[in-house]
Amino acid sequence: MTLLLNCDLGESFGSWTMGMDEQVMPHIDQANIACGFHAGDPLIMSKTLKLAADNRVMIGAHPSYPDLVGFGRRSMNCSVDEMRTLVLYQLSALDGMAQSTGQQVEYVKPHGALYNDMMANPLVRETMMEAVASYYRPVRLMLQATPQADEHRAEAERRGIELYFEAFADRCYADDGKLLSRTKPGAVHSKDKMLAQVQQLKNHGTITTVSGHTLTLTVDTLCVHGDNAAGVAAIADIRALLQA
Amino acid sequence: MTLLLNCDLGESFGSWTMGMDEQVMPHIDQANIACGFHAGDPLIMSKTLKLAADNRVMIGAHPSYPDLVGFGRRSMNCSVDEMRTLVLYQLSALDGMAQSTGQQVEYVKPHGALYNDMMANPLVRETMMEAVASYYRPVRLMLQATPQADEHRAEAERRGIELYFEAFADRCYADDGKLLSRTKPGAVHSKDKMLAQVQQLKNHGTITTVSGHTLTLTVDTLCVHGDNAAGVAAIADIRALLQA
Amino acid sequence: MTLLLNCDLGESFGSWTMGMDEQVMPHIDQANIACGFHAGDPLIMSKTLKLAADNRVMIGAHPSYPDLVGFGRRSMNCSVDEMRTLVLYQLSALDGMAQSTGQQVEYVKPHGALYNDMMANPLVRETMMEAVASYYRPVRLMLQATPQADEHRAEAERRGIELYFEAFADRCYADDGKLLSRTKPGAVHSKDKMLAQVQQLKNHGTITTVSGHTLTLTVDTLCVHGDNAAGVAAIADIRALLQA
Amino acid sequence: MTLLLNCDLGESFGSWTMGMDEQVMPHIDQANIACGFHAGDPLIMSKTLKLAADNRVMIGAHPSYPDLVGFGRRSMNCSVDEMRTLVLYQLSALDGMAQSTGQQVEYVKPHGALYNDMMANPLVRETMMEAVASYYRPVRLMLQATPQADEHRAEAERRGIELYFEAFADRCYADDGKLLSRTKPGAVHSKDKMLAQVQQLKNHGTITTVSGHTLTLTVDTLCVHGDNAAGVAAIADIRALLQA
Repeated sequence: MTLLLNCDLGESFGSWTMGMDEQVMPHIDQANIACGFHAGDPLIMSKTLKLAADNRVMIGAHPSYPDLVGFGRRSMNCSVDEMRTLVLYQLSALDGMAQSTGQQVEYVKPHGALYNDMMANPLVRETMMEAVASYYRPVRLMLQATPQADEHRAEAERRGIELYFEAFADRCYADDGKLLSRTKPGAVHSKDKMLAQVQQLKNHGTITTVSGHTLTLTVDTLCVHGDNAAGVAAIADIRALLQA
Repeated sequence: MTLLLNCDLGESFGSWTMGMDEQVMPHIDQANIACGFHAGDPLIMSKTLKLAADNRVMIGAHPSYPDLVGFGRRSMNCSVDEMRTLVLYQLSALDGMAQSTGQQVEYVKPHGALYNDMMANPLVRETMMEAVASYYRPVRLMLQATPQADEHRAEAERRGIELYFEAFADRCYADDGKLLSRTKPGAVHSKDKMLAQVQQLKNHGTITTVSGHTLTLTVDTLCVHGDNAAGVAAIADIRALLQA
Repeated sequence: MTLLLNCDLGESFGSWTMGMDEQVMPHIDQANIACGFHAGDPLIMSKTLKLAADNRVMIGAHPSYPDLVGFGRRSMNCSVDEMRTLVLYQLSALDGMAQSTGQQVEYVKPHGALYNDMMANPLVRETMMEAVASYYRPVRLMLQATPQADEHRAEAERRGIELYFEAFADRCYADDGKLLSRTKPGAVHSKDKMLAQVQQLKNHGTITTVSGHTLTLTVDTLCVHGDNAAGVAAIADIRALLQA
Repeated sequence: MTLLLNCDLGESFGSWTMGMDEQVMPHIDQANIACGFHAGDPLIMSKTLKLAADNRVMIGAHPSYPDLVGFGRRSMNCSVDEMRTLVLYQLSALDGMAQSTGQQVEYVKPHGALYNDMMANPLVRETMMEAVASYYRPVRLMLQATPQADEHRAEAERRGIELYFEAFADRCYADDGKLLSRTKPGAVHSKDKMLAQVQQLKNHGTITTVSGHTLTLTVDTLCVHGDNAAGVAAIADIRALLQA
């Protein structure tokens, strides 16, 4: 299985810095760039696009509920029309900026609570798909690789869009293919377990769940984290493993 | 002289309403649509685009300094890079939404303090031109018709962009071609004087200044205001006069 | 039963106007003043305090989740510490301004989704009580009059605070003492029914529910709405009825 | 001369961290705490107040123009009423929270562009004084120690308020007693020069300006910076020097 690496980037805001974007960018394939609603401002978006271009990294829009102080991590009961237009606004903002420097947005990966709501709530997922489908040129939607991948692909095909399925390198999976809640012990893997999980996924297309079952997952890309030096080192190790 | 009518629209925000957009839209040619920084949110932008499409009105982006509580009316000492990217962000957001419904942004008209700074400060004006020129497809910049039109057009040509020059239907002009300050008596015309000014501009391409001088102005479009019923009635009268 | 009238006021923001505050203020006893998180800004708060002082109206803080574009109508999954401090911040801001003009905040009435969450979720309600109890001088909490009033009063007493119970003049009640959902027919009363409901509450301390049952409610104050001319007229009618 | 140390603190926001508050707090006397308009949110303000209490540090409100993305560093052309009420709002918010934990705000130090405007523009300075004077209990205003101290003190006395005058430990002074512009060479002192400047101020109440003149300054407090490890180390050195 060929696996890409994706990472959330451009999550600084004004005078506040978050993430080690310059260290991360050389190691990844896909940059999920914040679009101003949970993080990012026009100047930071512009700098992040430049950094992606310099490293030949694919661009994804990373739209969020409008919640700067909560960093987009809190679900908001938006109407379907609000959700659809706020995704379209953020995708458009980033893509117009990207096209103006010879790049372009290739996919949309909802951020934080919007991502969680998309995976938990069919209405939100369909709204995300419809927002992406309504865009004037083809863009993919990135969502979580789960045992429901065929169903999600069928939903996407009905709207004429393609998907990226992502798995999480460092997270332990429950037997139903969801992520084990962060409140549970073992939810986040040690570095060794993380690398073993990536190796297994690369070689066999499977994940070993928390109770030891083997789960087959269709995965296009792995989500990695670049907030701190340990995270950046882990990304480099995963990259080396994938290229081996 | 053929004169278009342009008006600021889409200036509601969330639960707050501003402007009589539905009454205004049938009478104008160009809608300057707020892009979220002084007014407008994604849902309102979407509704305003629909209203413009229904009335076959040309779309302009109306970007602002980031100042919701001040409605973009206060100058902010942004760096050149901040100004360039905040215009590009707002233009992109609106244009991507517009293209997704088969429309497109044709021009950028900076809002409020950003417009005033553009007319008063060559660095801001050049930054607006460079933001527009950097966009990935041709879009015009709208600025005020003044005796410096040739100079402004030369600045624009050097960057490969075209301009719209606008005059103000209801404002009295000083002898230097600037608007008479609103703090001065007679700064805002009565309806009769407004219609006479439009008539003169249409027939002769000239304005009579506050002290009675005749000023030749190159004007593509007239700025009108749709905040209240009297404003909407005035727009209808100007429209009738222009079509006579 | 002596009934006060309370109304949400000061819900303009920057250049946007909402509510007929000047028309409403002479008819009410308690002004729930927005504190900047869903509406209101410092200048508007200052003007609203002045208007309340001129009309000898009691001041209440009307804090909200931080959601300007959603007008505080969307629940946000804040931590207990976030909720407690955002209420304390908003209460403090309004009260310090009020004290500086010789007034003072007498109570806190959470706004919109925060109010609904308070009534539906004991953890939110306790957090509201603790926020109010933590304030350095005595302030009441206003919540909805329900058959659970004794329980709520006991919760408040444990924290050393007092309550205001409010009923809704124009809303139909379900048999369990909750408001009938706005999605149901008959959820909002006609003017005649509204006045009858107020009359019954004044004379007998009871409400007739949607299915015709009689419900005894302990009510200190009636919530009325001043968004439009009809609402203002209704307030005047209720005021006349209460004074009769 | 007895010199206090003051430092800007509580300048994180939501998920973004700024400043080494925990390392700084033990070394300073006065904490200028952000109030939500350029940085700080209710939860961060609460934590910063706790940290100040634990270290017995005096509390100051650090209000700003409303400009999160610009960190309050850009002047905004607010009306006198807007400036007065935005200072009162922020002061009230912090002080109510402080009083609720047994602390209280002792002074107001405007932040960033608002501070610069206060020092450059008499109308802004008078507005700051009037905002502070309007507060319902006595609070001081902190402004820059300059050769105009007597004039500023007279302005304050007319309004019944007291002042704190602050000098900058690490900044070179121009001959007129203003700070040398950061665009000029030598504007920010080396550590040795900084300590020498503090020593001279402590022993003689004077500053040596950029051109070598000796300037007498009335100084109550020194502004120090805790953004990074070098800054924190410098604060500790200044503290040791002052206690020697």
